[in-house]
Amino acid sequence: MTITESFIRSVRWKGDHLLILDQQLLPHQRVFNPASTIEDVWESINKLQVRGAPAIGIAAAYGLALWALSSKETNVETFLKELKTKRDYLANSRPTAVNLMWALDRLLEVSKDAGSVEEAQTILLQEAKEIQAEDELVCRKIGEYGLSLFKDGDILLTHCNAGGIATARYGTALAPFYLAKEQGIQLSVYADETRPVLQGARLTAWELQQAGVDVTLITDNMSAHVMKTKNIAAVIVGTDRVAANGDVANKIGTFGLALQAKALGIPFYVAAPLSTIDLDTKTGDDIPIEERPHEEVTYIGETRVAPEGINVFNPAFDVTPADYVTAIITEKGIIKGNYGEELQKIKNR
Amino acid sequence: MTITESFIRSVRWKGDHLLILDQQLLPHQRVFNPASTIEDVWESINKLQVRGAPAIGIAAAYGLALWALSSKETNVETFLKELKTKRDYLANSRPTAVNLMWALDRLLEVSKDAGSVEEAQTILLQEAKEIQAEDELVCRKIGEYGLSLFKDGDILLTHCNAGGIATARYGTALAPFYLAKEQGIQLSVYADETRPVLQGARLTAWELQQAGVDVTLITDNMSAHVMKTKNIAAVIVGTDRVAANGDVANKIGTFGLALQAKALGIPFYVAAPLSTIDLDTKTGDDIPIEERPHEEVTYIGETRVAPEGINVFNPAFDVTPADYVTAIITEKGIIKGNYGEELQKIKNR
Repeated sequence: MTITESFIRSVRWKGDHLLILDQQLLPHQRVFNPASTIEDVWESINKLQVRGAPAIGIAAAYGLALWALSSKETNVETFLKELKTKRDYLANSRPTAVNLMWALDRLLEVSKDAGSVEEAQTILLQEAKEIQAEDELVCRKIGEYGLSLFKDGDILLTHCNAGGIATARYGTALAPFYLAKEQGIQLSVYADETRPVLQGARLTAWELQQAGVDVTLITDNMSAHVMKTKNIAAVIVGTDRVAANGDVANKIGTFGLALQAKALGIPFYVAAPLSTIDLDTKTGDDIPIEERPHEEVTYIGETRVAPEGINVFNPAFDVTPADYVTAIITEKGIIKGNYGEELQKIKNR
Repeated sequence: MTITESFIRSVRWKGDHLLILDQQLLPHQRVFNPASTIEDVWESINKLQVRGAPAIGIAAAYGLALWALSSKETNVETFLKELKTKRDYLANSRPTAVNLMWALDRLLEVSKDAGSVEEAQTILLQEAKEIQAEDELVCRKIGEYGLSLFKDGDILLTHCNAGGIATARYGTALAPFYLAKEQGIQLSVYADETRPVLQGARLTAWELQQAGVDVTLITDNMSAHVMKTKNIAAVIVGTDRVAANGDVANKIGTFGLALQAKALGIPFYVAAPLSTIDLDTKTGDDIPIEERPHEEVTYIGETRVAPEGINVFNPAFDVTPADYVTAIITEKGIIKGNYGEELQKIKNR
């Protein structure tokens, strides 16, 4: 397998098949699994080999296109009917991933009036490529706006993985680091390991290291000490959902970082594609916090790290009130101040 | 081996030998290693089977007494000379542990005028028992004062292990939970796992669970979310050293908790035996922060959790400025307000 691009793309179209980076094997092995059928893609999504909402959406879109291209059907109506069945099949690979449905339904929508199977096939593959290209552009714009907040030599701190491998390219919170690298600007970053699932240690540290970005790994509880003693210019994180009032849901630990940053006078930035801004969610109180299995806390790999039978609390996310957010960086610009108004404006622009 | 006391003592005198809880095997195995010779005790300290400054001091004192009791020497001067050699031998088991030297020198001091070997032997064993009894009393007083700050039903949060197994009994930050249990008062506690070495998961969660205290394990980055959503009444931690101005050095992560607690209006208490208050250290800036091996962060057990060659920052402690400390709980009472004055007063009381 030849990689011609110099950066790591977690989902890559190769003309008649996909290459999907197996993120479950990171950081120890860098394996790209070929996916030639819709079933291969289903498995990649289901087994969490591809993760990150945008990357999952992209993989699913190509998965549906793969089925379309392999179809021997000649009647377009039968083809489009089957397409819906295949959409439902792929949607089931990870039923709670909103981007997955969104991408699949977008493919259904653009192909619904196709005059022939060939036309539908062309449209479907084109749309999958489009979804990927759009996401890359969104991330690049977020990176450019984000970078405008920093200067050469700045040292930042980040949490979890809002990185290139979770998106088409660049990531959201990590996009400024890739853009800085392209432009010869020196940005350094401390990456929280992000217990319990260790996305920071396994993914963020890895992808930035691969890209030659100056990254230093810390445990989550070192953040305040690092902010105080390492001249941290800002904290930058991604988000799963931004409420209409600017409250931000993100990986557990984000809220604590925001409190620490504010106390120490350090700006706290959230990189948020417009797709994550949900005006139907009034405030952070309306965002349900998923609780995950205790074993994520009591085991690390095969190692049990806590006594048998211990009580565990394992919330996957927390909510950072808008008051603690210095600015929200979107692909259409940077928002500060009255989030209630500004989020509405930028969504409708 | 019969355990007659109903609680876990990490160092226990059995008439002619010690039983030392192997804290390296916790929480998976509860093994008490018999130590019948000074060499056994040296090994227990050196291999970190016994940990926690007070517990190390106690073990060392008994270790020296064990040698004394086994000595066949009849000339008291020769005996006392050999005692000094043995003191140096034990002091070398963990050269940076201040309590170790302090306990050993205390034994040398009380026995230096002994008129016979028999008298010296009696004095030495008696002094070792005394050191242990005093530490238990100190911890109990801290527990009583600490408990006076809480009420039935309170839910607290703690970090690392300032527990019974690190001391003669009760611990410092954990003492109020044991006292509450004795008095039928209901206190619950969230325990941070305390990366990288996981003292919270392996030791605090374990010893409180053993004692029937209502303890819930969380990862370090969940603290702010827990403080906000679980009605946390206070944070309580131990300390390695309190500076003359009230700045507190403790396990990495303590400073971040203090910032979060203040932002959320939650009291932040430090349990500090007078022995940890160091008036010769003016402020926290004068406390050196030990940096430890990268492998503590990149490995958990046998599992590597980060990419090869990654930069790591691994400070073992941080400093919480006095401004963030609501009160310091000592065995002679609770200090608040002007720490510069109050610490001086209480030390000289």
